Amino acid sequence: MRALVWTGDELIVEQRPRPRIRPQEALVEVELAGVCSTDLEIARGYMGFTGTLGHEFVGRVAEGPSDWLGRRIVSEINFGCGRCIECQTRSGRHCEKRRVLGILGADGAFAEFVRVPVANLHAVPDRVANEAAVFCEPVAAAFEILEQLSLRQGQRTTVLGDGKLGLLVAQVLSDAGARVLCVGRHSENLEILSSLGIETQLLDTWRGNHRHSAEIVIEATGHPEGFSLALDAVQPRGTLVLKTTLATSPEIDLAPIVIDEIQVLGSRCGPFAPALASLAEERIHVASLIAARLPLARADEALTRAGEPGMRKVLIDCTDTAAVNGRSQD
Amino acid sequence: MRALVWTGDELIVEQRPRPRIRPQEALVEVELAGVCSTDLEIARGYMGFTGTLGHEFVGRVAEGPSDWLGRRIVSEINFGCGRCIECQTRSGRHCEKRRVLGILGADGAFAEFVRVPVANLHAVPDRVANEAAVFCEPVAAAFEILEQLSLRQGQRTTVLGDGKLGLLVAQVLSDAGARVLCVGRHSENLEILSSLGIETQLLDTWRGNHRHSAEIVIEATGHPEGFSLALDAVQPRGTLVLKTTLATSPEIDLAPIVIDEIQVLGSRCGPFAPALASLAEERIHVASLIAARLPLARADEALTRAGEPGMRKVLIDCTDTAAVNGRSQD
Repeated sequence: MRALVWTGDELIVEQRPRPRIRPQEALVEVELAGVCSTDLEIARGYMGFTGTLGHEFVGRVAEGPSDWLGRRIVSEINFGCGRCIECQTRSGRHCEKRRVLGILGADGAFAEFVRVPVANLHAVPDRVANEAAVFCEPVAAAFEILEQLSLRQGQRTTVLGDGKLGLLVAQVLSDAGARVLCVGRHSENLEILSSLGIETQLLDTWRGNHRHSAEIVIEATGHPEGFSLALDAVQPRGTLVLKTTLATSPEIDLAPIVIDEIQVLGSRCGPFAPALASLAEERIHVASLIAARLPLARADEALTRAGEPGMRKVLIDCTDTAAVNGRSQD
Repeated sequence: MRALVWTGDELIVEQRPRPRIRPQEALVEVELAGVCSTDLEIARGYMGFTGTLGHEFVGRVAEGPSDWLGRRIVSEINFGCGRCIECQTRSGRHCEKRRVLGILGADGAFAEFVRVPVANLHAVPDRVANEAAVFCEPVAAAFEILEQLSLRQGQRTTVLGDGKLGLLVAQVLSDAGARVLCVGRHSENLEILSSLGIETQLLDTWRGNHRHSAEIVIEATGHPEGFSLALDAVQPRGTLVLKTTLATSPEIDLAPIVIDEIQVLGSRCGPFAPALASLAEERIHVASLIAARLPLARADEALTRAGEPGMRKVLIDCTDTAAVNGRSQD
């Protein structure tokens, strides 16, 4: 089968053997996958991962337990050991021995087929199209914030970043009742939120006028300067939710965290069930977030496109293997 | 009067006019003051402060309301505006217009006299000697952690740093029921805690054996590498309480905060009442923490001494002005 592989040196679409499943696993024929900023960071050295990239996808079960065969699914991306206390009592997302799809010890979904634990599968309701279901993982990551915070109705919340994740986080928090301001660099992205009734501001306008302006600030810029910007914007005793992961280590003045007694909350993967429900009920709008769609044969190009400033979601059509000799569709 | 002044370039003991109080203020004759690592950071540029240093002290009211005259007091160090919502509804420690004794906009206590708001005064019980009362401010800073966390009995808590603040934090958390391990570089400091029944380890022994070992880690090293050490030691979904303030900005890999969904809590000043009570009841032991005692005339030397590696608390005797021409006591 064809797969997009990060070798540690380069990104290449190459032939790989179709995965062979073990008990309690399913082989999923990938239909549509999405490029995340984390994929781009991995190709800069983040996590030291090598192998098939990709952790946002929707597909159909090709092999596995009979009750799952043929069903359209999305899959949680953390594969816990199933035996430790974390796995037994919680989600297993923090299992010390976990593998993470396309990120840590497990080949990902930018491929024709992917192997995932059956326990990680969620059936996709018929009314949720692939083009929406493929957003389930990042929408779940946005819902994670609601698991971590007790958000008050009308609470002033600033989302920094109008990229792939920021646009989802702003919608999820707004849907949950927060009074959201999304700050970004790309007016065309911010307009998506404006059209949904969410307040927005361009970074250059906001900068310098925002000090201690929000009780909650979500840092989803994907940019090294994001943390300092967020720290400046959050009110004393406020909360800074950190979503960005970087391959680099920026210089950070930690003193404001102490002086203003800020709570910094790291936030990673989240619950799929409310994410799928929000997509099914169209409370979260994703169609306008799709910037491009490329076939698997051009997945390397998809990652390059996804890395352009302000680029929204780039999808990879994993069923379309026709473009192997250069034909394409955007 | 004599005072230790940071000019922005140098630390000098010089003659300054005795402060003149305004309504709702008290003039306090300083008896004993303590050197904090923050004083040392200020002399490296932290906060951009210039003026008389010092914010840990005990003294006697010399001028002010009649019911306070002659009483022995300690004083909270944040001077709020008294009018904003923060001041009206909370402690005023986060008032945006606050001045902070010896740190921000208010001359400090390394002087014969200091001017503080009456609202900040706490009477010192007779049974608390000056040598204990002078620790009230840093003990209160340790108690702040208990205000921010809901500590479970027996909860595994690692205190990083066996310096001035770490030795107090370890005691306060242990007294509150945590199972404390204090990690430091100075066996003579750690022995103070061992003798109180608190577990300790030398940093070189602990390093490399501590990954994800504690639900709660308190970073009180005063060292740029402390944050990364603490981040490595805290368990996924655990809490890192940040006490260190630095004049510098270390390079920090933020990814572990996100991946392990760590809660980082900045923690600054705390409540004086429980701190004074713990000193009065001798639940917190401070006598063995005193490393040296110098007269005000040699306060510059006191700061130099306090900056030596592993140095415990250096006190400044502000009533002893006899040493102006070089005489001293240690």
